[in-house]
Amino acid sequence: MDIRIIKSPSEGTINILLRRKGTGANTLPPCLDAVGLVQGKMIEMIVASDIAEKAVGVTVEEIKGSCPQNMILLAIFGETAAVEEALENIKRNWENN
Amino acid sequence: MDIRIIKSPSEGTINILLRRKGTGANTLPPCLDAVGLVQGKMIEMIVASDIAEKAVGVTVEEIKGSCPQNMILLAIFGETAAVEEALENIKRNWENN
Amino acid sequence: MDIRIIKSPSEGTINILLRRKGTGANTLPPCLDAVGLVQGKMIEMIVASDIAEKAVGVTVEEIKGSCPQNMILLAIFGETAAVEEALENIKRNWENN
Amino acid sequence: MDIRIIKSPSEGTINILLRRKGTGANTLPPCLDAVGLVQGKMIEMIVASDIAEKAVGVTVEEIKGSCPQNMILLAIFGETAAVEEALENIKRNWENN
Amino acid sequence: MDIRIIKSPSEGTINILLRRKGTGANTLPPCLDAVGLVQGKMIEMIVASDIAEKAVGVTVEEIKGSCPQNMILLAIFGETAAVEEALENIKRNWENN
Amino acid sequence: MDIRIIKSPSEGTINILLRRKGTGANTLPPCLDAVGLVQGKMIEMIVASDIAEKAVGVTVEEIKGSCPQNMILLAIFGETAAVEEALENIKRNWENN
Repeated sequence: MDIRIIKSPSEGTINILLRRKGTGANTLPPCLDAVGLVQGKMIEMIVASDIAEKAVGVTVEEIKGSCPQNMILLAIFGETAAVEEALENIKRNWENN
Repeated sequence: MDIRIIKSPSEGTINILLRRKGTGANTLPPCLDAVGLVQGKMIEMIVASDIAEKAVGVTVEEIKGSCPQNMILLAIFGETAAVEEALENIKRNWENN
Repeated sequence: MDIRIIKSPSEGTINILLRRKGTGANTLPPCLDAVGLVQGKMIEMIVASDIAEKAVGVTVEEIKGSCPQNMILLAIFGETAAVEEALENIKRNWENN
Repeated sequence: MDIRIIKSPSEGTINILLRRKGTGANTLPPCLDAVGLVQGKMIEMIVASDIAEKAVGVTVEEIKGSCPQNMILLAIFGETAAVEEALENIKRNWENN
Repeated sequence: MDIRIIKSPSEGTINILLRRKGTGANTLPPCLDAVGLVQGKMIEMIVASDIAEKAVGVTVEEIKGSCPQNMILLAIFGETAAVEEALENIKRNWENN
Repeated sequence: MDIRIIKSPSEGTINILLRRKGTGANTLPPCLDAVGLVQGKMIEMIVASDIAEKAVGVTVEEIKGSCPQNMILLAIFGETAAVEEALENIKRNWENN
C-alpha cells in the first residue's frame, strides 16, 4: 500500500483526479487544501475507503485505474490536518493486520 | 489469498461493493452487520465461494475486478459471528491444501 | 499449475462456472457430482485440456478469465472418481515435462 | 519460452486452437498429426515464427491470448517428425541468443 | 520511477507522444527543445505531475499507456534547462519519500 | 530491454509485423533485407525510437502489443548493416543510462 499527500495541489492535478472519479457527479469536493492518495490491491482499498469515510472533514473519491471497474487509487480531499489524520488511521489499521 | 473483515461498514463502502456485484439483481443482502472480503486467484475464489455458500446465515457476492469477467474478490455479508465463521472455514480449507 | 477439486459443488458454484463457459451452448454437463479445477498458463491449459478430453466420463469446459479470449481455468465435471483420475493424468503429465 | 508438443490432438483441442487463430481464414491446416506449442514474449514469438515458417511441412498459426493483438502462443501443425524438427530449430536458436 | 530526457527529439518521437496525449486538444507544446519522460505507478505520476506543473517554462502532458485511463507516462516539454530542472525536482521529491 | 535481429525475414514474419503497425499507412518499408526488434517499457521504447529515427537508411515502425495504445515493440527495417548499426546505437545509449 502506497500513501502520499499533496499540499495545495495545482489545478492540473485536481483535474487529472476529477477526470477519473468513480462516481458520475461532477461536483468539486468542498475543500481542496490537500489531497491524500492511497494506492493498493482492491481488498485493501475497500478497507481504507471505509476508514476514511468514517473520518471527519474529508471527501473520499475512487480514482479509476487501468480499467473502469478496478479501484486502485483513493483520493481523500480536505483540510491538510483532516487529510493527514485520515491517512494516519489507514496506515495504523494497515500495520495492525 | 487475502482475508479481511469490516464491521459496521459505512454506507459508502456498501455502495462501492454493490456497484460491482457480479449478478444483475439490485437487492440488498438481508444483513449488513459485517462484510468479509476474500481476494485471490480465480481458482481459489471459486473454492472459497463454494465453502461460503455452504455456511449458514451469510450472503456471498462476487465483486468484479479489473475486467468484468475476472472474479477476484468475494464479499460475504451477514451477522458478524456468521461472517467470521465463514472466513474461518475458508482459511482452514486453504491451509489444508 | 494449480489443481483443486470441489465435491458436491453448491448450486451457486456451478452457476459461477457455467456463466463463464467458453462455448455458447447452455446445456448442463451430464454429471455434476464433482468439479475439478485446473489453472495455469495458456500453453499448459491446452495440454491439460487435451489430456482431460481423452479421459473417460468427464466433461471439460474452459472458464473465461480476465479477458474473453484468455483461457486460464479449466473445469472438469463428472463423477468424483472420474474427475480425480483426469486430474491425476494432468498432474502426472505435468511432472514429466 | 515454453515449448510443448501434443501428438494426435483431440478434436476439442484443435477446436480450442482454431477458435483463436490470428488470421481470419477458416481453413484447417493440411496435417493435424501433431501440434507444437510455443509461448513467450512477443519479440521471441516473432523470431520463433520466422524460424518455423522457414521449416518444411508445417503450418504456423498465431493463437490469440488475453487480448486480440497480443501474440503469445504459436501453434505449429504438421506430421510429428516435421513439428519436432521445427521445435528443435526454435529451441536451438533460442539457446544461442 | 524511471526518468529520461531526449534533447532535440525527432519529429517522429514528438508524433508518437502527441498521438497519445491524455487531453483532447491538438495544440503543440510551445517549446520542443527537449522532452523529459517520467514513468511509474499512478500514485507517483500524480505527485510528479503536480511538481512539474508548479515548475516554470514547461508543458506537462500525460501519455496514455496500455489502457486509456491508466496514466503511466508523463512527457514534460520545454527548453532543455527548464526540463532538466523539473526532472530534478521530481527526483528530489521522490528520494525524500 | 530485449534486442533481436532477423535476417531475410520470411513473408509471414513481415505480414505479422505489418498487421500490427502503429500508423495507418499500408506502405511497405523500402528495404526488407533485415528487421531489428526492440522490446521494453514504453519510456525506453520512446528513447530507442528517437535514436533509430536519427540513424541513416532504416525505417522505424511501432508494433502494437497487447492493447492498441501500448507501444512495446519497435521494428527497424533496412539493409542488414544499417539495422545492425541502429541496434548498436540503441544498446550503447541504454548501457550509458
